[in-house]
Amino acid sequence: MANHITPDEFRRHGHAVVDWIADYWSGLDSLPVTSADPPGTVAAQLPARPPERGEPLDRLLADLDTVITPGLTHWQHPRFFGYFPANTSGPSVLGDLVSAGLGVQGMLWSTGPACTEVETVVLDWLAELLDLPARFRSTGSGGGVIQDSASSAILIAVLAALHRAGGGRWREHGVDRPYRVYTSGQGHSAIEKAVRIAGLGDAGLRTVAVDPQTLALDPAALRTAIEADRAAGLVPAAVVATIGTTSTTAVDPVPAIGELCREYGLWLHVDAAYAGAAAICPELRHTHAGLEHADSYCFDPHKWLLTGFDCDAFWVADRAELITALTVLPEYLRNAATESGAVLDYRDWQVPLGRRFRALKLWFVLRWYGAEGLRAHIRDTIALADGFAARVEADRRFELVGAHPFTLVCFRLRSAGDTADADADAVNAELLARVNATGRAYLTHTRVGGRYTLRLAVGSPYTGREHVTQTWQLLADTATELKR
Amino acid sequence: MANHITPDEFRRHGHAVVDWIADYWSGLDSLPVTSADPPGTVAAQLPARPPERGEPLDRLLADLDTVITPGLTHWQHPRFFGYFPANTSGPSVLGDLVSAGLGVQGMLWSTGPACTEVETVVLDWLAELLDLPARFRSTGSGGGVIQDSASSAILIAVLAALHRAGGGRWREHGVDRPYRVYTSGQGHSAIEKAVRIAGLGDAGLRTVAVDPQTLALDPAALRTAIEADRAAGLVPAAVVATIGTTSTTAVDPVPAIGELCREYGLWLHVDAAYAGAAAICPELRHTHAGLEHADSYCFDPHKWLLTGFDCDAFWVADRAELITALTVLPEYLRNAATESGAVLDYRDWQVPLGRRFRALKLWFVLRWYGAEGLRAHIRDTIALADGFAARVEADRRFELVGAHPFTLVCFRLRSAGDTADADADAVNAELLARVNATGRAYLTHTRVGGRYTLRLAVGSPYTGREHVTQTWQLLADTATELKR
Repeated sequence: MANHITPDEFRRHGHAVVDWIADYWSGLDSLPVTSADPPGTVAAQLPARPPERGEPLDRLLADLDTVITPGLTHWQHPRFFGYFPANTSGPSVLGDLVSAGLGVQGMLWSTGPACTEVETVVLDWLAELLDLPARFRSTGSGGGVIQDSASSAILIAVLAALHRAGGGRWREHGVDRPYRVYTSGQGHSAIEKAVRIAGLGDAGLRTVAVDPQTLALDPAALRTAIEADRAAGLVPAAVVATIGTTSTTAVDPVPAIGELCREYGLWLHVDAAYAGAAAICPELRHTHAGLEHADSYCFDPHKWLLTGFDCDAFWVADRAELITALTVLPEYLRNAATESGAVLDYRDWQVPLGRRFRALKLWFVLRWYGAEGLRAHIRDTIALADGFAARVEADRRFELVGAHPFTLVCFRLRSAGDTADADADAVNAELLARVNATGRAYLTHTRVGGRYTLRLAVGSPYTGREHVTQTWQLLADTATELKR
Repeated sequence: MANHITPDEFRRHGHAVVDWIADYWSGLDSLPVTSADPPGTVAAQLPARPPERGEPLDRLLADLDTVITPGLTHWQHPRFFGYFPANTSGPSVLGDLVSAGLGVQGMLWSTGPACTEVETVVLDWLAELLDLPARFRSTGSGGGVIQDSASSAILIAVLAALHRAGGGRWREHGVDRPYRVYTSGQGHSAIEKAVRIAGLGDAGLRTVAVDPQTLALDPAALRTAIEADRAAGLVPAAVVATIGTTSTTAVDPVPAIGELCREYGLWLHVDAAYAGAAAICPELRHTHAGLEHADSYCFDPHKWLLTGFDCDAFWVADRAELITALTVLPEYLRNAATESGAVLDYRDWQVPLGRRFRALKLWFVLRWYGAEGLRAHIRDTIALADGFAARVEADRRFELVGAHPFTLVCFRLRSAGDTADADADAVNAELLARVNATGRAYLTHTRVGGRYTLRLAVGSPYTGREHVTQTWQLLADTATELKR
């Protein structure tokens, strides 16, 4: 007989794991944010062959401390400022734990009615919190669904767009016309990947110019590109606009883009992966102007809304169109509920067939924090980013790069008058490398107008003013060191 | 300030959630396997609007009992025999909990070295347990990676196949040739979906005939289809063979299919989503003959290997080919480790960019059970399925449908001599509906040779001989009732 765990063993070990996590979070501040070990360090500490006999869980927990955590980049660390944050929270972890224990596979409504219905309701709640257009709600023509990430959401949007652009022939005949998808040069790499996966090739993506100041897509350039492609016999299918680009959180002019999409009959997907969470604050909702034109929209509660990865919230305005594009129905999935037409089967809204009960973690977060708690988190973190930006601005060796409407601050050491751009880039790259090598903070970089630029993104519930101050001091001191 | 959870609150609530899960598992046997409530029942019990103020976690836990569990299909229930099992286990849940607490996003090696390296090592361990060809290991030319599901694994395999079939032009030009993918009429619906997503259209999938007795793909028919397509100017790109089809666990003749793929230069993906776990037992490894021909292979530890959904283990023989097909590298993801070429960045092995630390749950399972514990689980559940099949065989009202090499048993009530097929189908459908309506067991159905057939799949660690006996008795009694 297999050595299945008993309920009492599970209780005992489960309490130990919960305590381990609480201790880990409490101790994060004193850990280096990233590991300095070379590639292969963790693997070298693991046996080359799988264990023949079972081991006690205590040994696994011990290895977490000696092998795993020393080999990690700590995304929940109060001085992790890299990429965009991917922050979780206690309520999210607990909701996810319930989901793991239930072990429900909600591919169909009938294989987990509560799994489907909680997701529908919670996505409607979110739509209300963000004040999304009514047609995105399940009570209208559309509805929301959880995807693993904005990458998958973009892919799904592109597929639905091809279905529409082909007048229905895409399902049967695939990419048999030269479809084109448009985004700005600041759009996320996931757009290029989605277009490639969908079979359009990299040639199927049109990169539209941006305003050099705001880095937002230039609608006039979009019109020109669409017109040129139409004249060349190509088939414009979709535009992916971004609210809060990854590089600098630029906001594309969705109202103008939306008008163009309507005029030319293109699908408009709006990717607000990071910045979407801001829309729960009325004073930031202006960043979402024009969303009434969108055919689909997504943002990631797993970035800035305290919900653990993976949780991308994706909405479509016309769910019937999406389902028609993606559905495949073999005999072994037929069931009375599906045939009644009275239920949503979320398998038809995504790439994979199976799905976890991810709505639970979101439900836990929304209820624990309440709308006011979530707004407070958005405002708290924006205040921290603004504070950091003020310090950059006050130090004449540094300059801010662009605006910082959310919690991402882009900045760099100024070029001295006689410094070539390449040299200034090298100095900034060296600054970043030295700061990260201390393990006392972690930032990443981008290029803006070709120039090497540092990025500091705030999001962790553990980040306080002191962590931002310490990080600024580290940057300033390192800059001083570099000038010597 | 946002009301973030304190470590002490997390401990207290975490222990409560662990206890809730232990109680849930202990009490599963006395719950109905599925809910009998009509669509909308769960949603109607949830507030229409999101809460403005935060709520205590105790209220959430209370709702789990009153709203959520009564509205579920309980996949971990000892009398859940539907679809294929998606079983989890205590060690898996705990590994997943650690992962949620760490909150690492391992898109790149550098964003979580341990996240990447544990995954590589654990997939190598699994490759050894299944005795996969050496080239699938990271120490060879290939390597393994965790996908969310076999659906995504198939999609990735199809994309890599197109990259190869197009001689590299697919990345740039997409589906600009009439590529074709082959599978048997018993292949999973995920193959049709992958081919559609990849832009080949449903016309891009060739459904090859099967041997009517074994329901395994007929290699002669495959050769004929490939030859005909080539003659017609189409471009054969890939074959998806199945070890353990979803309908009946038929096993395609991989050795013969592999020879054909080699002869015609086609990518061979082998989908063993369910049955792959069997290969950890030497006496069942014959089902994996011919795997040395495969370019990629996957199975789902989340089905029959006690690891919670989502955990599909996917291997490729040539990782460089896969990475070249899928990689996209924007500035903000550049880093020294990637540029050194010394690390794997798993973002290039999958659709989404971001990824959780899913290897932890697999690592916990492999170490808690050990190879011998996992083999015992496979053998225990096969013995239960064999026991059920023996009862079906001993009751002359019933007949087995096909072989049952794993834990899926297909069966039906025989047609009486004077019964039309349609009537016999209706009787079997009624048998299934009545049994499921009792809530005392849950089975699903398929069609075999057009005939309505019941499926009983064993997998849960909680399923004992008594649960199988009870379910057989329920079926037999219901059959008696139907004959009246």
